[in-house]
Amino acid sequence: MQVAIALFPRLTALDAIGPYEVLQRIPDLDVVFTGEQRGEVRTENGFLGLTVDAAFDEVPAPDVVVVPGGVGTRELLGGGPYLDWLRAVHPRTRFTTSVCSGSLALAAAGLLDGLTATTHWSIYDFLRQYGAEPVQQRVVEHLDRRIITAAGVSSGIDMALRLAELLVDDVAARAAQVFIEYDPQPPFDAGHPSKVDAVVMERVGEYAKIRS
Amino acid sequence: MQVAIALFPRLTALDAIGPYEVLQRIPDLDVVFTGEQRGEVRTENGFLGLTVDAAFDEVPAPDVVVVPGGVGTRELLGGGPYLDWLRAVHPRTRFTTSVCSGSLALAAAGLLDGLTATTHWSIYDFLRQYGAEPVQQRVVEHLDRRIITAAGVSSGIDMALRLAELLVDDVAARAAQVFIEYDPQPPFDAGHPSKVDAVVMERVGEYAKIRS
Repeated sequence: MQVAIALFPRLTALDAIGPYEVLQRIPDLDVVFTGEQRGEVRTENGFLGLTVDAAFDEVPAPDVVVVPGGVGTRELLGGGPYLDWLRAVHPRTRFTTSVCSGSLALAAAGLLDGLTATTHWSIYDFLRQYGAEPVQQRVVEHLDRRIITAAGVSSGIDMALRLAELLVDDVAARAAQVFIEYDPQPPFDAGHPSKVDAVVMERVGEYAKIRS
Repeated sequence: MQVAIALFPRLTALDAIGPYEVLQRIPDLDVVFTGEQRGEVRTENGFLGLTVDAAFDEVPAPDVVVVPGGVGTRELLGGGPYLDWLRAVHPRTRFTTSVCSGSLALAAAGLLDGLTATTHWSIYDFLRQYGAEPVQQRVVEHLDRRIITAAGVSSGIDMALRLAELLVDDVAARAAQVFIEYDPQPPFDAGHPSKVDAVVMERVGEYAKIRS
């Protein structure tokens, strides 16, 4: 099975690399990084380059699609090769998925019309404008529609473990989890706005201005 | 402050990208991906290319060093530019850190002599051969020696949150955690060999043979 992770300029790296790292360990799955054209794309702040190995026309029938997020999603929403490719491949995927603001691209491609979906906590209203019904949940599945969306950035790891279970079996998912030693022990319990105070949210606002 | 993430061929991507994603959001920190030479390095299985933007001689005085792991660490341990650079920059860093088997490189550079340290669960004995005292712990700090090591792959995210606290303050760490919505909800509790059964460990062994 082929897993296509569709990159674009100004993406958020962990949105893509979390699922990659879980899925690449499972021999039944091959991962390809695709995009509008071959070559390097850079993350939001320019600190990191990732390679697109295959242009969209070289990936016509992926079994799984992963759409990462990042401020660069905004450039995709008006239409173009990225949305065209999503619409073209989705009818034959086993699962079409997104992480973080990647769900905006799925929605703009018309794939989330009337469906509940999740995204980064900061853009529920923005997602609603594109026809989806945002819900505050880490992973939202519509297995009958073959659509799975994940919340902000790191949630793609959790989603990918579920994908591994759906694509192979729960032993594969657990094996991948052991491999990446995903036994989270964050030093703070601060993974959502509901878990932090106003001082932290003010800092989040400052950082967003500078680095978004 | 400059954070240098030192790449090498056949690395594990999430070891590097986890800490990157946490730290890149904090305006006080700039992240640079360094390596023996500029250009692309590929992950263990070749599925992903990451760009080295600055050769080691262009990064002579980083404030923080992050050494990721991956099967490619084995090629570093005999000596060469990678270990030379670690030895050269460590005396002036605020923190020299590793994720997963990256601690082998720190140890081979002589930076962990007689210290407790952590690494991927599968290579405690290997780490011991290089002079460190392996302990089963997600993050091991020696603040007086400015050394922090993290366990397998995903543990770099937890370590980086602690680094953010040490480098800036706990508000910065919490803000970064909110940003990346790091509120883990893995579908399985299978993040360590102690948490899975023999069937899963057998699968881990199969996967390791094919994809290491």
